[in-house]
Amino acid sequence: MEITLLGTGGMMPLKNRFLTSLYAEHEGGAVLIDCGEGTQVAFGQHGMKLSRLEAMCFTHRHADHVAGLPGLLLSLGNTGRTEPLPIYCGKSCADTVRHLLAVTGGLPFEVTVEVLPEREAAEIRLPQMDPLFRITTLPLSHSVPCIGYRIELGKKPEFQPDRARALDIPVQFWKRLHAGETVTLEDGRTITSDAVTGQPRKPLVITYTTDTLPIPSIAEFAKGSDLFICEGMYGDPEKKASLNEKRHMLMQDACRLAKEAGAARLWLTHFSPAEKHPQDYEKELHALFPDTVIPQDGMHITLK
Amino acid sequence: MEITLLGTGGMMPLKNRFLTSLYAEHEGGAVLIDCGEGTQVAFGQHGMKLSRLEAMCFTHRHADHVAGLPGLLLSLGNTGRTEPLPIYCGKSCADTVRHLLAVTGGLPFEVTVEVLPEREAAEIRLPQMDPLFRITTLPLSHSVPCIGYRIELGKKPEFQPDRARALDIPVQFWKRLHAGETVTLEDGRTITSDAVTGQPRKPLVITYTTDTLPIPSIAEFAKGSDLFICEGMYGDPEKKASLNEKRHMLMQDACRLAKEAGAARLWLTHFSPAEKHPQDYEKELHALFPDTVIPQDGMHITLK
Repeated sequence: MEITLLGTGGMMPLKNRFLTSLYAEHEGGAVLIDCGEGTQVAFGQHGMKLSRLEAMCFTHRHADHVAGLPGLLLSLGNTGRTEPLPIYCGKSCADTVRHLLAVTGGLPFEVTVEVLPEREAAEIRLPQMDPLFRITTLPLSHSVPCIGYRIELGKKPEFQPDRARALDIPVQFWKRLHAGETVTLEDGRTITSDAVTGQPRKPLVITYTTDTLPIPSIAEFAKGSDLFICEGMYGDPEKKASLNEKRHMLMQDACRLAKEAGAARLWLTHFSPAEKHPQDYEKELHALFPDTVIPQDGMHITLK
Repeated sequence: MEITLLGTGGMMPLKNRFLTSLYAEHEGGAVLIDCGEGTQVAFGQHGMKLSRLEAMCFTHRHADHVAGLPGLLLSLGNTGRTEPLPIYCGKSCADTVRHLLAVTGGLPFEVTVEVLPEREAAEIRLPQMDPLFRITTLPLSHSVPCIGYRIELGKKPEFQPDRARALDIPVQFWKRLHAGETVTLEDGRTITSDAVTGQPRKPLVITYTTDTLPIPSIAEFAKGSDLFICEGMYGDPEKKASLNEKRHMLMQDACRLAKEAGAARLWLTHFSPAEKHPQDYEKELHALFPDTVIPQDGMHITLK
């Protein structure tokens, strides 16, 4: 899975820091979470291909997370796309998305708005993507309803040829059994997949939570993340009261959540425009969570 | 008058070319015409002050001219503004602006949408600005209703002290007479301004026309412009048929209009993203209109 954090800013795009947006690609299909003003510029800048988008998700309705939608859709229309594009978001955000679709005007493809629950967890399965690619959601705690996303890429259990040979299963059935199917052999026997495959394997997990107070359910939601991407508006603890009021969190809060979640790595994002050099905090944050990174726009990782 | 062309692109913002938008400032008050995705980034990049905005104008409802509105207004809200901001545009664009205001959400200042006629010329007077600063409009010819803008900054006629002395007018009345007032002297005589001022002087004129076919009324509208800013999507004449269809124009069309208008200088803008090096055409365009400039984003001029 290819993961790119297209931007790392909050509130407003800056000339050297676009707004927070996550691009996750698997087997040529991609999902974009959030699309603020300028996201399509970042998209082009980091060499992403618009044509690969299979779905978009929004965390919430604030302009710094959604206002880039008309431009991105119009540019997507210029790529010759005709396949429908689903947009997933909560109800209050869906109203905003519909206003943005009215601004966009006619497109050569259909856009559907798929409304997610705002007060409870949910699961999204994307029919266009590999069935092993699934997204689950978590209600966050912001000034407006806000949703966190966890992307899981399941791994097929290992195929065990020794067991298949011991059961005298002809090779032409092996691929289907590895894919999880139950097959009936020519001799009439029915073989289930687990007869020839190993233990279920831990999926790849990416969790994305912004904008929110550091509520405890985030740690549970991000459990076992290979990559946990979380907001950290400021690194200065003196900002805590103001962040509580605006329902955001400190970088330090995110580190504590990452530790509790047992995440493999943490990327902070959604830096305040007033936080001119967020990188300056990285070293001290390592005391709280060693695998903390303060990324720059376009930060990329291939997870295998 | 300070004029800055914040962006020079059309259709979509690029990493090194933002969308076409004009900033005109006079005596600390400014007007912005068009605000596509990323205009607020260009605003900051070129050192403009959001707090000076007294009004915004839109040419038409296409996203590349309007979609930056929510972000710009929210950033303006963060400057502490409380004064109302009028937005001028045609009726179909006003519908789009209202959708964008719904996306924006609450602001600490009022935004009013002032609907301009789309099929006839009109005049805008901005009560917050110097009364000598006026804007007139022209219906353009695009795929949707579109409006061109002409900004005029009137110059007071010169005061002629010799004539004032000859008429025995006390000095304390000179300033009011120069400002255009009629005054009654202590001896009972009524003196009009033109008794002591020279011929009316040509105002400073900036004309801005995008997106449109090169209709003849543009040359009349841009008559005597000190600066004529006009779209020129492409410099390759082979694009003419496609531009006619999309109701845009070639750089060469704009040069012919500039010549006919007797403009002092022409700045081309709204380049297609496919036009990678619009500057390459500048030299050959000088044969059509010598004072043609292919600006880069942030092109600035002080007109006196």
